[in-house]
Amino acid sequence: MAFGWIDEQAELRRRAGLVRTLRPRAADTPLLDLASNDYLGLARHPEVTEGAARAARTWGGGSTGSRLVTGTTELHAELERELAGFCGFEAALVFSSGYAANLAAVTALAPHGSLIVSDAGNHASLIDGCRLARGTTQVAAHADPDAVRKALGAHDGPAVAVSDTVFSVDGDAAPLAALAEACREHGAGLVLDDAHGLGVLGDGGRGAPHAAGVAGADDVVVTVTLSKSLGSQGGAVLGPSRVIEHLVNAARTFIFDTGLAPAAAGAALAALRLLRREPGRAARAGEVARELHTRLTAAGLEAVRPDAAVVSVRAPSPERAVRWAADCRAAGLSVGCFRPPSVPDGISRLRLTARADLSGAEIERAVRVIGETRP
Amino acid sequence: MAFGWIDEQAELRRRAGLVRTLRPRAADTPLLDLASNDYLGLARHPEVTEGAARAARTWGGGSTGSRLVTGTTELHAELERELAGFCGFEAALVFSSGYAANLAAVTALAPHGSLIVSDAGNHASLIDGCRLARGTTQVAAHADPDAVRKALGAHDGPAVAVSDTVFSVDGDAAPLAALAEACREHGAGLVLDDAHGLGVLGDGGRGAPHAAGVAGADDVVVTVTLSKSLGSQGGAVLGPSRVIEHLVNAARTFIFDTGLAPAAAGAALAALRLLRREPGRAARAGEVARELHTRLTAAGLEAVRPDAAVVSVRAPSPERAVRWAADCRAAGLSVGCFRPPSVPDGISRLRLTARADLSGAEIERAVRVIGETRP
Repeated sequence: MAFGWIDEQAELRRRAGLVRTLRPRAADTPLLDLASNDYLGLARHPEVTEGAARAARTWGGGSTGSRLVTGTTELHAELERELAGFCGFEAALVFSSGYAANLAAVTALAPHGSLIVSDAGNHASLIDGCRLARGTTQVAAHADPDAVRKALGAHDGPAVAVSDTVFSVDGDAAPLAALAEACREHGAGLVLDDAHGLGVLGDGGRGAPHAAGVAGADDVVVTVTLSKSLGSQGGAVLGPSRVIEHLVNAARTFIFDTGLAPAAAGAALAALRLLRREPGRAARAGEVARELHTRLTAAGLEAVRPDAAVVSVRAPSPERAVRWAADCRAAGLSVGCFRPPSVPDGISRLRLTARADLSGAEIERAVRVIGETRP
Repeated sequence: MAFGWIDEQAELRRRAGLVRTLRPRAADTPLLDLASNDYLGLARHPEVTEGAARAARTWGGGSTGSRLVTGTTELHAELERELAGFCGFEAALVFSSGYAANLAAVTALAPHGSLIVSDAGNHASLIDGCRLARGTTQVAAHADPDAVRKALGAHDGPAVAVSDTVFSVDGDAAPLAALAEACREHGAGLVLDDAHGLGVLGDGGRGAPHAAGVAGADDVVVTVTLSKSLGSQGGAVLGPSRVIEHLVNAARTFIFDTGLAPAAAGAALAALRLLRREPGRAARAGEVARELHTRLTAAGLEAVRPDAAVVSVRAPSPERAVRWAADCRAAGLSVGCFRPPSVPDGISRLRLTARADLSGAEIERAVRVIGETRP
């Protein structure tokens, strides 16, 4: 029978305790949220939701087509200008998701005959970009500029190094300045995914590349998401104008996808303007993360020191991670639970995200619940 | 220099007349739109835009995380239930785009050792799904069930055939019943992309698989988009519950992507309910397309007989297609212009889309402008 093998896989997942199920949340959930990527607490900010509502009314429920046909509005152009300016780049190109932006950047910048040097801890969307690209991928050791340098040195022809700026699972940062240096030595481009850096790192949340002094360089291309710090949906590629023009002409997930919905563009633009006006939100997210880490460590838990707003806490097994997260939930706290196959090293974790709008009492409560429910 | 090869490619594109540029549109453009995929004219319907605005206010500007973490709301679940019910399937799973839904369906249903038989005219997102999948892809002649049968017959192990239901470029329909029969003979699954069928074909717009009597079968999986007839953004996979559960556990563009923004889910749900209430909109889109075709053909133009709401008109060359579309635009008519590399056969076209809300006078005006500006 067609799809018969699916049942076998489902049975294997059941036995391994790795079944994933969807848990629809209510609009007024009383849970304390340390699981979302809403780092600045802007997703439900009235300016952001009004930005979405106003854009839908002005521009429609959808963008109605590929951005090359009818799907580019003046709102998209405005968002691209302001986003590029904020992060310190010449130009920006908005996509329907960060996933699509990553597929676009990697595939369009790694043509046939080129080399991609990809960090071993990269996000699935960068990995899929490498798989789709015509170039050859070589995986480099995690956060290791010398490994990148070595791989680039052994290749002749166009090359890019590809890395997250802040790694999604453990929240650790990539050595951006050293990576940029390694790339420059070999005339290679550097593609950085700043999904977890934008809004949290850099002056007023301008992102990790800005903080590292590599934003706006002619050999650096950065992807960001509008769905984390900016509380919306979508993604963008930032870079030199010639690279952005190249993507418009060559990136399949740009050409063949419907443009981002106006409501999402409007929400992201409102969030970006709010962040410019209240730059302290960015630093606060990092402070909350460090405070969480300090308190969790003091409570005897094994947590990774956060470089941005993600705090990762080790769990002894997938089953116990799931149980731990469920127990937190029963105690009113929502935390992420990462386990195989979503983690490259096979280690299960609770994944906490710091939000700029968490109060001291909320942080205290979160740490208490996590400590009390530990396996 | 990094990215130096980009300039050479840009120069080649310039010489070939294949440069693409973005043209942001204003909210109140006076152009008559025959270029968007807003087949039912719902993108700017007040119920749809209010659906978006209300959802943003109730649920936030974004879904805040992967659907497996915080990104699934009761609104997503509601949309999935109603969409599955409307199209005649057991279950549905909503994605941030149709592109992501196609990547998910093809990759998750074509494991290592399996065969994918892919129609030669398939959309870029299905092709990228084939490229990403662990299975082996064999391209079959366009709309040819015997070619599919032959390819499936030569393979041992899990297999799927993958096809658009209505092909994006020429608007022609796939022979769904015959494809399903060929798949069943070999115990293979059938994955259909109904992006251009939903809302236009089938009883009240239930889609091409419903019209062909294959909706809800245990060996048929359908992807749809929320960004065309439903005037929003996003995509969905429809199929048996066990397949949907498999996708929740195995599809990377589901697991590692932020969930669809509430505003997009709200807009799509409002459009779906409107379509249920006013089912005549679906048939009207097809009527408009056939009328466009009849009149264009009578005017001596070479147009493909439409099976849904896309009407394709041949142009003599890429340059003249671009000029033709620009001349239409100067005369107040917005039409699509498809040319290499977006067209598999290298033939440039004007691509017109029928909208259910076009008046007789607008159809007449469109045909007049296209005729008067022909190269």
